[in-house]
Amino acid sequence: MKIRKQVLEHDKISYAVDHIELPEGCIDCCEGCNPYGFPPECADTLKEFDPERMAPYPHSHALHDAITEFWREQIDVEYDNILITDGSINALYIINNIFDTHNAVVVGISPQFTDYYMHAEMIGIDYAPYQLSADNNYKFDAYEFISMHFVAEKFAEVSVPAKTYNFIYIDNPNNPTGQTIDIEEIEKIVRKAQKKDVTVIIDEAYGDFMPKENSAVQLFSKYPNLVVVRTLSKGYGLAGLRVGYIIAHKDMIGYMKKMVNPYLVSEIGREVAAEALRHEEFIEDCKADFKEMKAEIREVLNPCIEKLIKNGPNAGKIKKVRGPASGRLHMAETMDENSLLLLYHDDKNINLRDEFYKRGVLVIDGYDFKGLTSSSARVRLPKKEDFPKLLDAIREINSL
Amino acid sequence: MKIRKQVLEHDKISYAVDHIELPEGCIDCCEGCNPYGFPPECADTLKEFDPERMAPYPHSHALHDAITEFWREQIDVEYDNILITDGSINALYIINNIFDTHNAVVVGISPQFTDYYMHAEMIGIDYAPYQLSADNNYKFDAYEFISMHFVAEKFAEVSVPAKTYNFIYIDNPNNPTGQTIDIEEIEKIVRKAQKKDVTVIIDEAYGDFMPKENSAVQLFSKYPNLVVVRTLSKGYGLAGLRVGYIIAHKDMIGYMKKMVNPYLVSEIGREVAAEALRHEEFIEDCKADFKEMKAEIREVLNPCIEKLIKNGPNAGKIKKVRGPASGRLHMAETMDENSLLLLYHDDKNINLRDEFYKRGVLVIDGYDFKGLTSSSARVRLPKKEDFPKLLDAIREINSL
Repeated sequence: MKIRKQVLEHDKISYAVDHIELPEGCIDCCEGCNPYGFPPECADTLKEFDPERMAPYPHSHALHDAITEFWREQIDVEYDNILITDGSINALYIINNIFDTHNAVVVGISPQFTDYYMHAEMIGIDYAPYQLSADNNYKFDAYEFISMHFVAEKFAEVSVPAKTYNFIYIDNPNNPTGQTIDIEEIEKIVRKAQKKDVTVIIDEAYGDFMPKENSAVQLFSKYPNLVVVRTLSKGYGLAGLRVGYIIAHKDMIGYMKKMVNPYLVSEIGREVAAEALRHEEFIEDCKADFKEMKAEIREVLNPCIEKLIKNGPNAGKIKKVRGPASGRLHMAETMDENSLLLLYHDDKNINLRDEFYKRGVLVIDGYDFKGLTSSSARVRLPKKEDFPKLLDAIREINSL
Repeated sequence: MKIRKQVLEHDKISYAVDHIELPEGCIDCCEGCNPYGFPPECADTLKEFDPERMAPYPHSHALHDAITEFWREQIDVEYDNILITDGSINALYIINNIFDTHNAVVVGISPQFTDYYMHAEMIGIDYAPYQLSADNNYKFDAYEFISMHFVAEKFAEVSVPAKTYNFIYIDNPNNPTGQTIDIEEIEKIVRKAQKKDVTVIIDEAYGDFMPKENSAVQLFSKYPNLVVVRTLSKGYGLAGLRVGYIIAHKDMIGYMKKMVNPYLVSEIGREVAAEALRHEEFIEDCKADFKEMKAEIREVLNPCIEKLIKNGPNAGKIKKVRGPASGRLHMAETMDENSLLLLYHDDKNINLRDEFYKRGVLVIDGYDFKGLTSSSARVRLPKKEDFPKLLDAIREINSL
């Protein structure tokens, strides 16, 4: 029936599921939502929402105004620079669709958000990821990326040099590792891409867990080839509401608006999300907790050792530094304030998800990310009160 | 930046706007939502909704269950036959995207829902509409459609015979006229299309205003080439919530699920829409009111006249029949229970939208529909209490 051959032939890989079975006593470290939920004021906004507003099409500009206000200290974001979307995943679907898909390639980083490149592939765009390596603890190397990213031959998946790189997709922070690329490096990539007429999509789904000063949003007015995606589902904890947004040059937003109608995001979603964005203090509290938890994980996996300072003004004193791995489990490069982390095990035959599951912790199988296997797993930190269970599991699996 | 040429070059025509200016004293006969709102029980569901459910990703199956229950008397609809979507417009975007767009053509009817073919064109699908004609009061002729619809040369817009018809798009009831195609005729089209391996999309956005027995939903298990789209935005009056759904063979739904993630439709949307579907009596009341209003419009435009019965058992008695047009305004073929109607004027230079606007009634300019001009306008019936204002405007414009 003239269905796209990719849709007919490709299997979809995704960790997004329509039903989560959480056994009694098990803790959820699986879905990317915020374990602390949303700013409590959002519940009041919902309670006060006038039900009559469910009837007309959504027309509220409350969310647009809140987005402008949210970025005020960094940059002027005007109404025409914003497209609000039903979660950031729908933002990515819209963005993929504005590009000419003929002979198209999107350059990515592997591992990264699986559903993004799945959609690209389904609509006929080839995916050419720059591979992060366990040898380098999965750390992203911007210098290497920039020097490689317009050279087709070097990419694992695509060997057709005639193909053009239509665009670049980077999730920052990275999902699943939770590491952050510095804004200076992002800018270098965007600037280089601009010279080649290549669009760069920066997916900041987990962006609320990095300093606002590191957001690519503040670059959009300088680079018409930059598209930044944000969501209310992660940091602001409103995954059930389906609210995200895109910030870009108004021409770029104009192209996207040709692909969709203006009724994206429900009227309730617009109001409650607007309220959430007025409570940055909520995220700060979450980040502080995540930072403490990741420090404890580091202490289990790489306990600090004491070291004698040999030279300089503190010579003779003792300082604490991270020691070698205490076992066989490792945490990939990550930013401590982020709720996400990637664990990987020296035993290539271990199924890390299963090992966590046996210990009452639900995590995402590394297999669900391109470039990873089941000997790795994505963990989303739980609430502090549930953390001991996760830490115990990490401790045990580290010794396997 | 490798943007699709259609997106760069085509202007988007749409009557969907992000802001509606309703001047003081003016009545809205413009947006397709239900002027009577939604079943009142939905407000209770919203009030009782636990705010904590905004935090996790949406996983409720309440809407799937309610859809199954809604169609129980007509047909068994299983979980795998349903894709819930953020309004029916997003359903259409997803459907367009499963097809191979290379040399693709979608056969439609003109006029019909503008945003549908706009999206198809933006992603590179040619649109070949079968043109309804004022000479036939814009009545759809299934016999003519079937005899034409695989013959490229006969379509106004596409003259490349080598192109294949990937699929057919029919909105039933039709938007803007509000006319309904009988299920028997729909089945003939779907059956003929099946032989040619052509998919048929039946968009029943306004389907709640026709008898359930006329829905193509009851055909989906017989025809794997059939895709039916429904929404909660029109009859059930929940446009602000963004809820729609697709019913089709599970293979077809499977293709679509490869294009999207399972988090479509917010958790609140799922619960409130499920409640709405349990109140069919609400729609019956709306339909009764619309029927009365349309009868009054008919009486203004084509007043009944008395006629002597010449033959048969009632010979010699008087019967009432519709007389000729009383003026220069006409209502296109329509079903009286439907909230939509199309008016067109004999004066080709009149701007019907402006004439209504002057008289305090906001309607949609016919220009926003392919195949129509500004001497026609789409009217969505208001609440009965606001109807006299519309009827007065119709009466005056009829005499222009």
